[in-house]
Amino acid sequence: MPITPSAELATPRDTPLSPEGPPPPPRLAGAPRGPAAVAALVDDAMRTLALATTERGGPLPASTPHEVDAAVRDALAATGAAALPRLTGALTAGAADPAHPHCAAHLHCPPLAVAVAADTVASVLNQSLDSWDQSPAATAMETQLVAELADLVGYHGAGAGGVITSGGTESNLTALLLARDHALGAAGTDPGRHGVARAAGTARPRILCGAAAHFSVQRSAALLGLGEDAVVPVEVDAGHRMRVEDLRAALERVRADGDLPVAIVATAGTTDLGGIDPLPAIVRLAREFDVWLHVDAAYGGGLLFSRRLRHLLTGIEGAQSIGMDLHKLGWQPVAAGVLLTRERALFAPLSRSVDYLNPTDDEESGYPSLLGYSLRTTRRADVFKIAVTLRTLGADGLGAMVEACHDLARSAAAQVTADPRLDLAQEPSLTTVVFRYRAGGDAEHGDRVNARLRRSLLEQGRAVVGRTRIEGRVWLKLTLLNPDTTPDDTAALLALVADAGDAEQARPQESR
Amino acid sequence: MPITPSAELATPRDTPLSPEGPPPPPRLAGAPRGPAAVAALVDDAMRTLALATTERGGPLPASTPHEVDAAVRDALAATGAAALPRLTGALTAGAADPAHPHCAAHLHCPPLAVAVAADTVASVLNQSLDSWDQSPAATAMETQLVAELADLVGYHGAGAGGVITSGGTESNLTALLLARDHALGAAGTDPGRHGVARAAGTARPRILCGAAAHFSVQRSAALLGLGEDAVVPVEVDAGHRMRVEDLRAALERVRADGDLPVAIVATAGTTDLGGIDPLPAIVRLAREFDVWLHVDAAYGGGLLFSRRLRHLLTGIEGAQSIGMDLHKLGWQPVAAGVLLTRERALFAPLSRSVDYLNPTDDEESGYPSLLGYSLRTTRRADVFKIAVTLRTLGADGLGAMVEACHDLARSAAAQVTADPRLDLAQEPSLTTVVFRYRAGGDAEHGDRVNARLRRSLLEQGRAVVGRTRIEGRVWLKLTLLNPDTTPDDTAALLALVADAGDAEQARPQESR
Repeated sequence: MPITPSAELATPRDTPLSPEGPPPPPRLAGAPRGPAAVAALVDDAMRTLALATTERGGPLPASTPHEVDAAVRDALAATGAAALPRLTGALTAGAADPAHPHCAAHLHCPPLAVAVAADTVASVLNQSLDSWDQSPAATAMETQLVAELADLVGYHGAGAGGVITSGGTESNLTALLLARDHALGAAGTDPGRHGVARAAGTARPRILCGAAAHFSVQRSAALLGLGEDAVVPVEVDAGHRMRVEDLRAALERVRADGDLPVAIVATAGTTDLGGIDPLPAIVRLAREFDVWLHVDAAYGGGLLFSRRLRHLLTGIEGAQSIGMDLHKLGWQPVAAGVLLTRERALFAPLSRSVDYLNPTDDEESGYPSLLGYSLRTTRRADVFKIAVTLRTLGADGLGAMVEACHDLARSAAAQVTADPRLDLAQEPSLTTVVFRYRAGGDAEHGDRVNARLRRSLLEQGRAVVGRTRIEGRVWLKLTLLNPDTTPDDTAALLALVADAGDAEQARPQESR
Repeated sequence: MPITPSAELATPRDTPLSPEGPPPPPRLAGAPRGPAAVAALVDDAMRTLALATTERGGPLPASTPHEVDAAVRDALAATGAAALPRLTGALTAGAADPAHPHCAAHLHCPPLAVAVAADTVASVLNQSLDSWDQSPAATAMETQLVAELADLVGYHGAGAGGVITSGGTESNLTALLLARDHALGAAGTDPGRHGVARAAGTARPRILCGAAAHFSVQRSAALLGLGEDAVVPVEVDAGHRMRVEDLRAALERVRADGDLPVAIVATAGTTDLGGIDPLPAIVRLAREFDVWLHVDAAYGGGLLFSRRLRHLLTGIEGAQSIGMDLHKLGWQPVAAGVLLTRERALFAPLSRSVDYLNPTDDEESGYPSLLGYSLRTTRRADVFKIAVTLRTLGADGLGAMVEACHDLARSAAAQVTADPRLDLAQEPSLTTVVFRYRAGGDAEHGDRVNARLRRSLLEQGRAVVGRTRIEGRVWLKLTLLNPDTTPDDTAALLALVADAGDAEQARPQESR
């Protein structure tokens, strides 16, 4: 039952069956007739998507950015009923496909079918969590799921606070906002009202984190008016874990300088090496110095689903706030971030009464409001797919997937070690494998060869491997988030990388 | 083809057809076999959704928040393959349904079927716009669509900047961040690096906006470290439009005080009355005082699709930045916000080079990066549904829907005027109708009756009407975003409201 645009435009309303024949398809997704129209459109689009994936063949298009741009421009010429299939074809043909075993660059997971279907339900119902009367059941569901996730991290669910976010960056920003206003508030001022200039006085607000923490910590400091240089980077070890003695020294320096420590941000799973900061020791220091501890577990939080691996996050419940992304080790379509606080009252700086959303007398009459938990106003029910996934697979089901990726990283690291053309940076901690092609020659030559071999694999549409820079040098990276990828797949991928390195070395100098 | 959890968990990989019979359904959404599994799950879920909508009957559940909470708790007991249908049923039964003509409280639209189907495609492919190698075609599509939307507002698309956001709140926050760093940067400091305390010196940063501007302006000021009282509210007229002479006086006062004007935020469509600030005059003042002008057209931006109504936004192209939400007058599932800037370089404060996302040599080799346009890192391809919608319906198709809602508001206002039990606040400007039940007695009595009649309609599951406070008094509001709603529907809805007011008046005092 394809929708034709002329029929849509001619249908001012979802009309009942008439004796003249079947009515035209509805344009809106809502019931009674919209859901069947959505299902029919999705059915067609999924066929197109499957076909276009087969045609693409590899993990990404064998095209330059310029060629991808031109293909999209062509597809955007489609109009009417042709638009959905044509643009679906173009988006698929030009996708970097996280479901392909040779697409392993980023914390970019292949989503679960059941989570995608749940996401479609959320799109049709279009509930918005900024007021109860736009999301009665969704408000209840987010409240209950947040309590359950709080239990998972070891908070007492009933007293804990939390919210679904767009991801680790929003979780870090929100946590640091709460920490900023908590610290400055304790110092006797109200930064939310008066700003940090007046509020801070002469004490400089400071945020301490590992030198390998996510760049969103710096970005948040800039956004919050504290400035990037409010961030004090603490030395990390070779596995990118914060050195506790250096954290102590940094805290003492902040105190000696008369500065105001706003927060410590510990990382549970750095982006490159998957480093997990020593949480129990950091919790003790945070208590000793009376500083807000936020744990960025955007990547590592998924370990909590695994009975075998959750001990790696021991101590996490000692933090004031924790962020985790279920669009990483949780196999959700983006976005599925979570921010949790040990106590609900820690969200106080965001609380707000708005006449048109949560008037006081409505709240007193028992109508709850989640407005005071989020930086956003309109907010999609991303909680729904998370709830459906947790119930469909169970925590153990997700845990098995986490373990599969963790095991895969170990076997891939062994494959790197076994290949004389490749060099392993570190034994994997989570599900990444950082390595490089041994190019010989000087370090700059090695950097160039590795950067170019990666781009050559992209251009040829053969592989999407990650890259990063560690101690000044370019390294390559597999981020393994596909539980269906096998050791044979990673062996083939690593061979592609090594062969591309050989080819790069063999290319005449001027053509590089 | 229902997915059973045991089958999912037992399937370590998407296996080919075997002679023993058909393979179990895949758990991942990706091709080759995932898309068909998604389509089958969506088909089932849409049947459940349609059925549960029929069972609900009204625009929201006839339940208290406590009862909704209990129903969701029950549904969350489902496990395995039962979870998706059971939770879909619960979310639908407990939904405030924007597709129902008696759900008319908020800027909460019923989405288009084709946009929902496109959103499903985006979920399956799960492209993330923070790097090209997670979203080749999606990066191209967002770039091209942003240029097109820039043309729509009157910017020169090729030189303009822009990004898809989670909504007006994120658009306002991002624009004010850019404006803050632009203004403080021009004053010789770098707030992104050093913070606003050191940067601002003695000059107090100020943001000027109409007194009826969205609360996210205050919230953004708090987040950005400027403080809510950095916001200077400018007097508005009875239609909630900024008084230009008062804006001039406020700018002169800021200048006289030695303060730093960071931005003027003009509103094109206030939440309650749909007031559109006088844009041409404000543009002239912004130029005269050399202040960044941001237009919050989250609500009113959709007028640009209508040839008949777009003149209401004349002058908007004189702003430095413009936000508009296609999940309001654009019929997208949340989120579909847009932030545009007149020049791409205005995004400079957000630009950033990250080793693992957009290394310099990759950018020099022609790989584009959208990282520097967004506050987020991982970012879903929300642009896809917007592109599909614009091509399926055309701007004129959306414009016809905007006009239908605009006309409907006028006819509903006439219905209010014709009913002696109701009082109209203002002739509608956009698609809202603000009114109240004439309760007689003193003003507090009227406020109580109107607040209670609204809650009684919610409790009975009969209607979702909005409420707000204007000049200290409680008013009710219809926000008409459903183009399929007819004057007969609004007449019935207004009769429900008036009858509920009568019932509230007749209730014995103690039972209220």
